[in-house]
Amino acid sequence: MSKAIVQVQLDHGRAYPIQFSGLQALPSLLDANGLRKGSCIIVTDTNVAALYLETLQDILHESGWRDLTAILLPPGESSKHPNLLQRIYDQALGAGIDRQTPVLALGGGVIGDLAGFAAATLLRGLPLVHLPTSLIAQVDSSIGGKTGINHALGKNLIGAFYQPKLVLTDLDLLQSLPELEWRSGLAEVVKHGLIADADFAEELSTNWDSILRRDPAIIRHMVIRAAEIKADVVSEDEREASRRAILNFGHTFAHAIERIAGYGEFTHGEAVALGMRAAARVSAMLNPDLPHEIINSLLQRLPVRNSIRHLDPKELLRVMYYDKKVQSGNLRLILLQEIGSAYITNKITEKQILSGWNCLIEP
Amino acid sequence: MSKAIVQVQLDHGRAYPIQFSGLQALPSLLDANGLRKGSCIIVTDTNVAALYLETLQDILHESGWRDLTAILLPPGESSKHPNLLQRIYDQALGAGIDRQTPVLALGGGVIGDLAGFAAATLLRGLPLVHLPTSLIAQVDSSIGGKTGINHALGKNLIGAFYQPKLVLTDLDLLQSLPELEWRSGLAEVVKHGLIADADFAEELSTNWDSILRRDPAIIRHMVIRAAEIKADVVSEDEREASRRAILNFGHTFAHAIERIAGYGEFTHGEAVALGMRAAARVSAMLNPDLPHEIINSLLQRLPVRNSIRHLDPKELLRVMYYDKKVQSGNLRLILLQEIGSAYITNKITEKQILSGWNCLIEP
Repeated sequence: MSKAIVQVQLDHGRAYPIQFSGLQALPSLLDANGLRKGSCIIVTDTNVAALYLETLQDILHESGWRDLTAILLPPGESSKHPNLLQRIYDQALGAGIDRQTPVLALGGGVIGDLAGFAAATLLRGLPLVHLPTSLIAQVDSSIGGKTGINHALGKNLIGAFYQPKLVLTDLDLLQSLPELEWRSGLAEVVKHGLIADADFAEELSTNWDSILRRDPAIIRHMVIRAAEIKADVVSEDEREASRRAILNFGHTFAHAIERIAGYGEFTHGEAVALGMRAAARVSAMLNPDLPHEIINSLLQRLPVRNSIRHLDPKELLRVMYYDKKVQSGNLRLILLQEIGSAYITNKITEKQILSGWNCLIEP
Repeated sequence: MSKAIVQVQLDHGRAYPIQFSGLQALPSLLDANGLRKGSCIIVTDTNVAALYLETLQDILHESGWRDLTAILLPPGESSKHPNLLQRIYDQALGAGIDRQTPVLALGGGVIGDLAGFAAATLLRGLPLVHLPTSLIAQVDSSIGGKTGINHALGKNLIGAFYQPKLVLTDLDLLQSLPELEWRSGLAEVVKHGLIADADFAEELSTNWDSILRRDPAIIRHMVIRAAEIKADVVSEDEREASRRAILNFGHTFAHAIERIAGYGEFTHGEAVALGMRAAARVSAMLNPDLPHEIINSLLQRLPVRNSIRHLDPKELLRVMYYDKKVQSGNLRLILLQEIGSAYITNKITEKQILSGWNCLIEP
């Protein structure tokens, strides 16, 4: 049996728990983490609300929480927009919050990023609790305090590092996740294996069929281990001064795909799966000892519905330079040293990056 | 001779300096505080730009800074608006910033709050440097990391605690400050004496005529001491969990005045001067030993051009409950125990607050 709790250790003795429990444990966990019973703000999207909002409200009401303000947003990446952020501000402030009012982010990565940024900036900071409902949120975006919204020039360009008081991860919620979202989340799980844990990467290969059919025991182990890897990396480098950047493996390519193809053409997981293939290709060019075939066979298991053959590699290259990870004009990339070990470099030529793109475009 | 530097000590060994020097010291101070020479963003307003922008750009250019992007905003409180924040985002991101690009906030309190919040949220945080040009910014708003913008429901409701890397305070800039702004800033100076340093409050009374005519030696001593008081209070309680709230003496009343009268009818300093009179009146009701006459005679020296007699005390009372300092439904007020000592209470009745308002309204 895997442990039911992972601690995210931060600088200066700060820490918060990721608790793997059913949603019904929320009231006692809020209490245990110093959040006083009172009113609260729930931010969610209409898809998630249809499945879980009433359950959550019942759980809170039954244990004496009152004045629950539910803020419902449209689902999807396009909600990470200043207008939707403003809507959260308006509704939360209209409800008469104070600095002790918690914000509960019930949803996937988009809701976590958006509600997290709203919590970071309302009254200069409200207590934040993540209730991640998607695989990507459970293993990745709810952990580590990155919050934010998009800007016309790129994803997540406006935001804050803002840590939650608590993450409550209900693994049962994954069973009702739409297939496309399930598969999208697997890209981040595979990424965690490739950058930090070769044994885990091998386990994923071995158990792939059970994972696809969501065997509860297998995915419990998988989600907890993937969350633990993320927590460990974040603990070492909360503000992404250095090591944390390895979590961006594949992402500089992925952000370019999402931007040029238009948000929504690919799921984030599909873009990351493609981005990792390109990054693995560049890695292999620089290190001929890298077992590129083994990596590729794992990455090829991640299903991607569309091709990027219609996209212009030069355009893709150009927008990579808008990414936050560009440092003083040099593009910073995360590459694999071996399976389970990643490194950061800014010594990659445009030609090498183009070769990465071309491996996705050429037959 | 007063010391030329005040350290703001924060939790966990963090600290930053307030340096009292001419603007020409900026390049060496940036270097000393770990900010690498490169491109930078300057946020200012059109009034301040006309006086100092070219000088600042020359100083930076001469020492090898390049790609200086100046973002000019309209002067005044109405710039603390989401649209102007968005304009900073657009111009800064359009200029191709990275996470090392410093944001220099050249201006008064509005520019400091707005540019500070932009710095806090661009790429999840850029290095921030305050170059305060007004008295209120030099003794108050540039110190302590409060940043933010206004919302239709109240001032500063959206924001972040975000500490600068450096505050460079050029006292010579105060000589060209418009008279109205000079007098507005004096309200915060007097506040610092009343809440934390009886000797300083007495000095202010004694030197009042020299202060009004901006005697350089007197105001040097005054600004440094007022900044030091602010830094000390912030050091004890960076995130306003408790003691820092004493800096809000008079401000809950002041925010209500600004809101009901309409922003701009009173300067912030005038509203604070009036708010302190109301708060002193409530303080005296609760503590008959308070030397109310002495306090009032100091507060009456702060010139206020308009009366609030046309405002409805019940309306003023109502909007006080929108303030961030409302905690779980109880209005929290800062009152004086004696001159130089303030305390926080949430045990004030509406009737007592109304008496505070009435002392401003009745003849």
